[in-house]
Amino acid sequence: MRLAPLLLALAVTAPAFAASRETRIPDTSLATAAQLREQALADRTGWNVVESLTTEVGPRLAGSEADAKAVAWAQAKFKALGFDKVWIEPVTFPKWVRRSERAAVLGGHAQPLTVTALGGSPKGTVEAEIVRFADLAALEAAPAGSLAGKIAFVDYQMTSARDGSDYRNGGAIRSKGPSAAIRKGAIAFLMRSAGTDNHRVAHTGITRFDEGLTPVPSASLTIPDADQLARLLQRGPVRVSLALDCGWDGEYTSHNVIGEITGRSLPKEVVVIGGHLDSWDLGTGAIDDGAGIAITMAAGHLIGQLKQAPKRTIRVLAFANEEQGLYGGKAYAEKHLADITRHQIGAESDFGAGRIYAFNTGAPDHARKATEQIAQALAPLGIEYAPGKGSAGPDISPFAAKGMAWAWLAQDGSDYFDLHHNADDTLDKIDPAALAQNVAAYAVFAYLAADAEGDFGSQLKETAATE
Amino acid sequence: MRLAPLLLALAVTAPAFAASRETRIPDTSLATAAQLREQALADRTGWNVVESLTTEVGPRLAGSEADAKAVAWAQAKFKALGFDKVWIEPVTFPKWVRRSERAAVLGGHAQPLTVTALGGSPKGTVEAEIVRFADLAALEAAPAGSLAGKIAFVDYQMTSARDGSDYRNGGAIRSKGPSAAIRKGAIAFLMRSAGTDNHRVAHTGITRFDEGLTPVPSASLTIPDADQLARLLQRGPVRVSLALDCGWDGEYTSHNVIGEITGRSLPKEVVVIGGHLDSWDLGTGAIDDGAGIAITMAAGHLIGQLKQAPKRTIRVLAFANEEQGLYGGKAYAEKHLADITRHQIGAESDFGAGRIYAFNTGAPDHARKATEQIAQALAPLGIEYAPGKGSAGPDISPFAAKGMAWAWLAQDGSDYFDLHHNADDTLDKIDPAALAQNVAAYAVFAYLAADAEGDFGSQLKETAATE
Repeated sequence: MRLAPLLLALAVTAPAFAASRETRIPDTSLATAAQLREQALADRTGWNVVESLTTEVGPRLAGSEADAKAVAWAQAKFKALGFDKVWIEPVTFPKWVRRSERAAVLGGHAQPLTVTALGGSPKGTVEAEIVRFADLAALEAAPAGSLAGKIAFVDYQMTSARDGSDYRNGGAIRSKGPSAAIRKGAIAFLMRSAGTDNHRVAHTGITRFDEGLTPVPSASLTIPDADQLARLLQRGPVRVSLALDCGWDGEYTSHNVIGEITGRSLPKEVVVIGGHLDSWDLGTGAIDDGAGIAITMAAGHLIGQLKQAPKRTIRVLAFANEEQGLYGGKAYAEKHLADITRHQIGAESDFGAGRIYAFNTGAPDHARKATEQIAQALAPLGIEYAPGKGSAGPDISPFAAKGMAWAWLAQDGSDYFDLHHNADDTLDKIDPAALAQNVAAYAVFAYLAADAEGDFGSQLKETAATE
Repeated sequence: MRLAPLLLALAVTAPAFAASRETRIPDTSLATAAQLREQALADRTGWNVVESLTTEVGPRLAGSEADAKAVAWAQAKFKALGFDKVWIEPVTFPKWVRRSERAAVLGGHAQPLTVTALGGSPKGTVEAEIVRFADLAALEAAPAGSLAGKIAFVDYQMTSARDGSDYRNGGAIRSKGPSAAIRKGAIAFLMRSAGTDNHRVAHTGITRFDEGLTPVPSASLTIPDADQLARLLQRGPVRVSLALDCGWDGEYTSHNVIGEITGRSLPKEVVVIGGHLDSWDLGTGAIDDGAGIAITMAAGHLIGQLKQAPKRTIRVLAFANEEQGLYGGKAYAEKHLADITRHQIGAESDFGAGRIYAFNTGAPDHARKATEQIAQALAPLGIEYAPGKGSAGPDISPFAAKGMAWAWLAQDGSDYFDLHHNADDTLDKIDPAALAQNVAAYAVFAYLAADAEGDFGSQLKETAATE
């Protein structure tokens, strides 16, 4: 998941041409979807896909050797799952590499600290006193120059929630903390991991340095290590050594990998579902975002197994390098901009593998009925209709910002930030039954959207936000 | 906790001179113990002690710089807690050091593996195919020479239990697996951690190489990494690289640290309670065994705060280097052998910080009544009397083997092997209320044993086992 998707609340405004005819889903389609739903719940494809990706490729940092392996894996998997068309589209981005990372408390209480570099951090070795801040606002309120020669330490503890809402704080510290620290004179940046676990696994994730600033080594501490620093600070000044070997290293071209189940009567119109293929390097990218790849590949596969394909094409997207800046999503939006109205609606799965509990679309009035019909078909899966709520997933958000209609299938993320961006993001954390429920939901949604009579309002916005 | 304390079932045989007079605890002592119990439940000393040790010293591998700091810390803490006498006794042992450790899957599924060297492992770098065994028996049953040039991988998954009983299997793999592997020709040894968690933290612990064998690099994998290897092996042969930099490095002299609350009428007779001061280096040694140090120091302190001291002396022992071979316990037994009958009874806390649920002593018939009386005083803490069960704790076991009477205060170890010997053994894993219950139990037990009229049967055995 990218930095702050939950903050996005893109309202797709009702297009000026809003059809007088209401978008509706035929009864026969609803009957097929009910069968598809039950079939998906009993199917193992989703599990098999995520098992395959996380085992055979494992961690797949954008730009690493495993990135290329993941692209080849996705092409082969789409083909093996019977997709009618499989292709790749190039995505170019700067490559960041992690080589080593170490930290320790110095002095009378000398002891090692477990840290991980934030993505985008430069390399560097420093030894300095740390200055603790309870949150980002406290750091931003520090007097100019007050951190000269020191290490800023932001010690905010995220709380868990079904919707992961406290990531707005944890994620903001990661993205904005280093620049704020530099502005106060700091020579390095440390943060309590943006996480909700209590294990010795630090949470990484991309950070950015504001233009005009000289980047400083920036890392996160595990939550027990942050606790330890906070306790040591109660006893007096604490000096810390931090040694990061990491940094930007040229450009790399990866690929979005795309598979399609061809529609029977409107094959050039597509319903897009997907996830991102890259992961951070510390775990094996099971919940972020092997699960999303598996859920949407399996949903497409199951739709492809139906006796009769839906009217429109099901396009499953495996996006490149979401983690470091939505590169795959942006590339897709740019490449397919002219075809935006051919995109019936899109949804991305990128919030783990917990059960889906809510559904909505950003559709305008003329397609409200169809949204309600899909919600009704999802209800037996324990999914409630949540009108007025939701947003586009990270990698479809650049295209949604241009005007593509989006759907929101909200996963239970109560334990998501226990695992997000850390070494514990491994296959064993996925519940196969919850994964199957996700597959069922995506299959039902995608099938019904593809079989709808009428559209969900995708239309190029005149003055679209560029994210 | 040492390798296999649960296997120990030392029966202190009834001494030939078994007193005709029954050992009993006076009613006034029982009344005082009831007050002590309630006071201990409301007291924060235990928490403060473990917070201090794990924060100020942190990890304290035997022989490391932190070992000396821990000894100084314990002396200062005993004094601060009002112990009447505080002293140290030297304990010498070979020093083992861990410098670095790395492992990776090679080939088409190349990816890093998270491992930790087993204590006692030599350094070494190997690249070879792994051969998986479901358990130690399977490895031992492999044909001679069948592992020539290969890495043995024992993939046994421990299950959790209140009494930690499956450690008999997990621990035996760690202690005997490397030698068994060498006998089959293996050039390195890997094992699934002897643990019950599902995090990317590997469990270390001491291993031994049988005489006449040339030691090979030996390490444990985290449980998710072991899962990963098992899945990869289902796809075909797996080559792994393992690079350990660690090994034995001369001798080191640490110290047992001892604090006493002097008895009022039989000051030379002692009730001993304690834990071990050393820890593994990966965590901060909170449950293994900061908790045991804290529980017994706090219990001694609370007894010392009573208006009237018990008849006998309370001796609290902070043992040196338990982890690598009970060095502190053996040194104590050797040094104090002539005084064994002055040791009323002993108990060690070294199974975490879970609530105590059962109590027993190894006392002979003439002291059965006193055991029952103590059990009755412990009952309000939710502790049941468990006649016929239990054994001496690890560091008192060498002395118990010589004939010292022992008591058993059984802790709930359901989550112990989630944390044991790994990086997650940190302060946040301790429940302050459970810790206070432990302090209350040790205070009640030690006070009543020290105030008993009569003994619990300590007597030098003619042909004592030497452990």
